[in-house]
Formats: sequence, structure tokens, C-alpha cells
Amino acid sequence: MNRCHNFNAGPAVLPVPVLERIRDEMLSLPGVGMSVLEISHRSTTFETILAAAEDRLRRLLNVPDTHHILFLQGGASLQFSMVPLNFLPRDGSADYLVTGSWSEKAVEEARKVGRVNLAGTTKAENYARIPKPAELRLDPTAAYVHFTSNNTIFGTQWHTEPEVGDVPLVCDASSDFLSRPLDIRKYALIYAGAQKNAGPAGVTIVIVRDDWLRRIPDGLPTMLDYRTHVKHRSLYNTPPVFAVYVVGLVLEYLEAQGGLAVVSAANAEKAARLYAVIDAGGFYRGTAERDSRSLMNVCFRLPTPELEQMFLQESSANGFAGLAGHRSVGGIRASLYNALPMDSVMALIDFMRDFARCHG
Amino acid sequence: MNRCHNFNAGPAVLPVPVLERIRDEMLSLPGVGMSVLEISHRSTTFETILAAAEDRLRRLLNVPDTHHILFLQGGASLQFSMVPLNFLPRDGSADYLVTGSWSEKAVEEARKVGRVNLAGTTKAENYARIPKPAELRLDPTAAYVHFTSNNTIFGTQWHTEPEVGDVPLVCDASSDFLSRPLDIRKYALIYAGAQKNAGPAGVTIVIVRDDWLRRIPDGLPTMLDYRTHVKHRSLYNTPPVFAVYVVGLVLEYLEAQGGLAVVSAANAEKAARLYAVIDAGGFYRGTAERDSRSLMNVCFRLPTPELEQMFLQESSANGFAGLAGHRSVGGIRASLYNALPMDSVMALIDFMRDFARCHG
Repeated sequence: MNRCHNFNAGPAVLPVPVLERIRDEMLSLPGVGMSVLEISHRSTTFETILAAAEDRLRRLLNVPDTHHILFLQGGASLQFSMVPLNFLPRDGSADYLVTGSWSEKAVEEARKVGRVNLAGTTKAENYARIPKPAELRLDPTAAYVHFTSNNTIFGTQWHTEPEVGDVPLVCDASSDFLSRPLDIRKYALIYAGAQKNAGPAGVTIVIVRDDWLRRIPDGLPTMLDYRTHVKHRSLYNTPPVFAVYVVGLVLEYLEAQGGLAVVSAANAEKAARLYAVIDAGGFYRGTAERDSRSLMNVCFRLPTPELEQMFLQESSANGFAGLAGHRSVGGIRASLYNALPMDSVMALIDFMRDFARCHG
Repeated sequence: MNRCHNFNAGPAVLPVPVLERIRDEMLSLPGVGMSVLEISHRSTTFETILAAAEDRLRRLLNVPDTHHILFLQGGASLQFSMVPLNFLPRDGSADYLVTGSWSEKAVEEARKVGRVNLAGTTKAENYARIPKPAELRLDPTAAYVHFTSNNTIFGTQWHTEPEVGDVPLVCDASSDFLSRPLDIRKYALIYAGAQKNAGPAGVTIVIVRDDWLRRIPDGLPTMLDYRTHVKHRSLYNTPPVFAVYVVGLVLEYLEAQGGLAVVSAANAEKAARLYAVIDAGGFYRGTAERDSRSLMNVCFRLPTPELEQMFLQESSANGFAGLAGHRSVGGIRASLYNALPMDSVMALIDFMRDFARCHG
């Protein structure tokens, strides 16, 4: 099986043992006589899969009993609307920290519901960094503060949560969720599309604090009311069974690796090695400011657009996939999610050194 | 590989060749070097998968150019809200034909948006039949007429569409979509969760007439506005890549079978044989009136609840899965979706005859 070095920004590389397990069980889950694609979501088989996924996630992230874990559909894009519909009163205001395109989209949806205070943004600097604490203009009466923990397009990341006092903190963690330990107690709600570190596209993980649910107004569409999914434990309607199953396998794999502290250290090492090559020699140029750099998405440029095109073509011919920057910004982006092996990083580094030597 | 006879009501049995193909390609799609779970939704690989699925569906159902095909998330349950949010003006009224629990849920969501006229219901008869044409009280000024083509819980089915004149027709076809040919020109919008005949849970197919989109008001949450998904060809945000891929494989399989006329004839034959056993001998009793019977979900009772429990236990021990009626009504339900082989039906018939002989 000839597999490439997969630097996709998401959907992204998954652990090979997880893929092998899915393959081996595809015709029949052990002892069940049906594929996971064919089981009822009301069966004990699926209840066990769902409960195990929730339990593993609770252990890996130390999710306290104060918080519910939900497996939903619609991606972060639907959360952009669900968060304000549930928690932004029509006469209230929410603080949004805007660090890239995904934050902008979240703001756009919130503005359809109520007032938005742009409490911090680096748009004027083309989102090359995360705002500094002193730059934030937080409203102590805000319904919540929303931020995007990692910005795939601009390659920046909040290395610690913004300080928001008693205001509920909401986070779109889609692109760094499960890449590092988190103190879930700091969050009123955190959400993540699974398709980076947690599993395949098609399921969105939401962790929400129970006491915050009391703020939800009545009359929302049933599927958009978080209480529906809390009450029915993600089984109000047919959930994305297969995607939840794969997330469960990924979580099992992460536990076997030793948990998120171990995974986080490996991610830091992968990123450090790659950034070191970018910083040495002057051929490559990182786009994000150093102290805002993402450990997940390493974005960089070459001296000319022509060299970037050549870099993408040659890397592709050499078995590297997914290295093109987002179509809105161009350049090169190497995404280093949990499941990307160090071997792939080392292979990319070798390729980059060779390329710089030939064209520098 | 010991596979059971899978009579699940959905998620449900899939064609074995489809499962084998998924298994064989799980580590790497041919020539791609990545699993389908790892490809970017912006890649040409996925664009090809998505376009092929749409093309096959267009061919199988003769979907005219006037109609768009969308692959969304959230199941029929989210469509219950999206349909009225997009097409029921706040000062308008929509006609709902109520033939079971799913229709009731659709009504509940529509009432949060505007007025609902219950234009036909058999609730007083415990939904044992579909309303007759003369019983319908349709409003010629309604924004649309909504009906549920097949009722999984009560085992009834509309064998032809209700006559609605010029009023736009909307159908929740979740549980008989792709089981028979349809004249799509009759529909302004038809939607179906994939997890019966079309594929796995996690993707919802929507077919909507282009000129109807003009009625959609501005200001909806972006993800709930059908125009978003039309404009972006189901790629506004990350779609459920794997589920779309499996739907594509199922559609390819259905084409290879000879198309929906062939499939429909096979479904009719399976249902006819099973209903014949129910009607013979007086031990089993069908719950739906004969001319309203579903070809998808065959619901029946035994003389006593104790015998039903015994039937479920013994059938389970003999390799039959999914035969319990919905938890809200009890009894027995055998779902005969496209991918259920005639062999499974014949095995069930043998089992039922033996059981009736022993306990009748």
C-alpha cells in the first residue's frame, strides 16, 4: 500500500492502525454480524461505541462532570450560528476575538442574532499574529467571549486562553482540539469539527457546561437547541454513526500513545524541527509572527510565486500531499496534526533543504 | 465472515459489494495514496467523487436540470426546520399531511415559523393508513404541501403523490428514497436521510427546484439557507466526505442492478412474499390497512405480547437482526430496503412459518 506524506489541512491524515481496524471490521463488527455502517443507532452496539467515545474523551481531556460532551453534525459552520442563537440575547452583546477567516465567519453569523463587539483583532496586520492581552477590549457584561484557538489559514495559534474573568468563554477549537491538554473548566462551551485531530469529517464535538444551558431561550429549532442533544445524549435523531465510531478509535489510539501530554510534546517537536528549517538560511519565510506560530499549520513562503509553484509540483511528484496554502492566501502550508508521523516531517525537511539548495 | 439477516429500520443493510469496496480502499483510494477519510474536500479526488454521485443520482431518478441536488448534514430532523425557515412566510400558511411520528415532528418545527394547516391526517386511526384523496383539505394558497412518503413506524406508504395542483410539493422521502422511480418534476423539494436505501447515516440528500429558491428570505443562518449549498455545490463547508463516497458507491451499485425500475420490482416481490405469509393462517396480523401498506417496513403483530417477545428472542438467536417494532408502538417490524437480499426474506418466511406452527 503506497501511502503519501499527508500534510492536508483537514480532512487530514489518520493513524494507520485506526484505518486498519476500520478495514478489518468493515464487513462485520466483531461478534455483531453487521458492518458499523449497518447497525441501528438505537442498538446496544452503538450505545457502547458512543459511551466509550465519550468516556475516552472525558479521560483524555479531564472533562469535569459539570460539562456535557455532544456529537453533532454540521461542522463548526453550524456552531457559528448555534452559539449565538442559544447564548446571545437579542438585546445583548458578545465579544468576538477575530484572528482569521473562521473568526470572521463566526462574527457574521452572530450579527444575525445580536450585537457583536470586536474585542480584539489583528486584521490590519493580515492576521499574522494573535492579539496581545493588553490589546483586548473586553466588555465585562458580554454574554460570552468567542475565540478561534488555531487559525489554519494564517498559521497562528493561541498558546493560552485569553483572560476573560467571569465572562463565559467559547472556543472554536476545530483545528487544534486534542493536540494538547486543555483546562476544560475555563470554557463555557468548546466545539470542534472532528476532521483534523479527532477523526473524519461528518461529526462535530461540543463540550458545554451544564449550568450555562439555563440561558437558552425557548422556541429554537429543536436541532439547534443544545438542550435537545444534552437531553437525548446525542441520540435525538440518527447521529453520524460511522464518524463517531472512527472518533472512538482515534481516542483509543491517543490513549494508547500515552495521552495528550505525550501527543502534545510530539507535536511541539515536529513543529520545532520544521520551523527551524524555515528560519535557517533565508530561502523560506514564515508568515506568522514567531510567538503566535501554530504548532498545527506551518505557513511559509518562498522567494517568488514561481518558486512556490515549482515547490508544490515537485513535492507532489515526490509523494507529498496537501502542501498548498489556503486558496485565499497562497504560499505553502504544512499541517502537522497528531497522526502525521515524524518520518513525514523529516522527509519534508530533506525535500525542503534539497529544494533550497537547487533554487536558492 | 458471519453476517446476519439485517432487517434494521435504518441505519440498515448495505450491499456487500459496496462494503467490500470500502474495505479494500480503506488504506488508500486507488492511485491516491490516502484513505477517503484523509482526503481534502477541496481535492480533485473528492470533487470527482461528489460529481459522480450527483451524476448517478441524476440519471437514476431522471432529475431534470430544473432541480439541484445537495448533500447536507443534520438528517431529516434538520430539514423539518430548514423547509419552513426557507419557504414558510411568517404571515403565510403551509399544508401538512400527517401520517405518523415523523410528520408530527415536521409540523412541530413548522409551527415555530408560521401557520400550519393539518390538511389530512389519520391520527384518529393510529396512522394505520394513508388519507384518501377525498379526505384532503388542501389550501390552494398554501406556501407548500408537506408529506412523508413512507412511515417507518406504522408501516404505511403513499403509493402515489398527493394531488396538490399548483401548490409546491415537499416530501420527506427518507425511508423510501431510491426504492422506486419518482417523477421529480412533481416536487419543489424532496429530502431524505441516506441511512435507509442510499447509504450510511451522516448525509442528507436534498433535491430542490431552482425557481423555488427565489422565495427564500434573507438573513437566515448561512448553513440553513438552501442557496448557500446550491451556490457552493454542497461545498460551503466541509461535507461528510465518507458518507458521500459511500452514497456514490451505492448509486453505482444500483445502476449496475439495472436502475430503479428493476430495484422497485424486486422490492415489490420481497414485500409481496412477506405480506402473503402474514395474511395466511391467522397467526400474524398486519397493522397497516392493505392499500396503504409499505413495501419498505412490514409491521405486524402476533397473538400476544408474550409471543412477540419469544419471536424476537428466537429470531435473534437464529441470526435475524432488527425485527423489533419501533419502541413507541411495539410489535414486529421487518424492513426490506433495497440491499436486503431475497434470501433474507425467504429465511424469515421459513422462520415465521416454523414459529407459527410451534406456537399457533
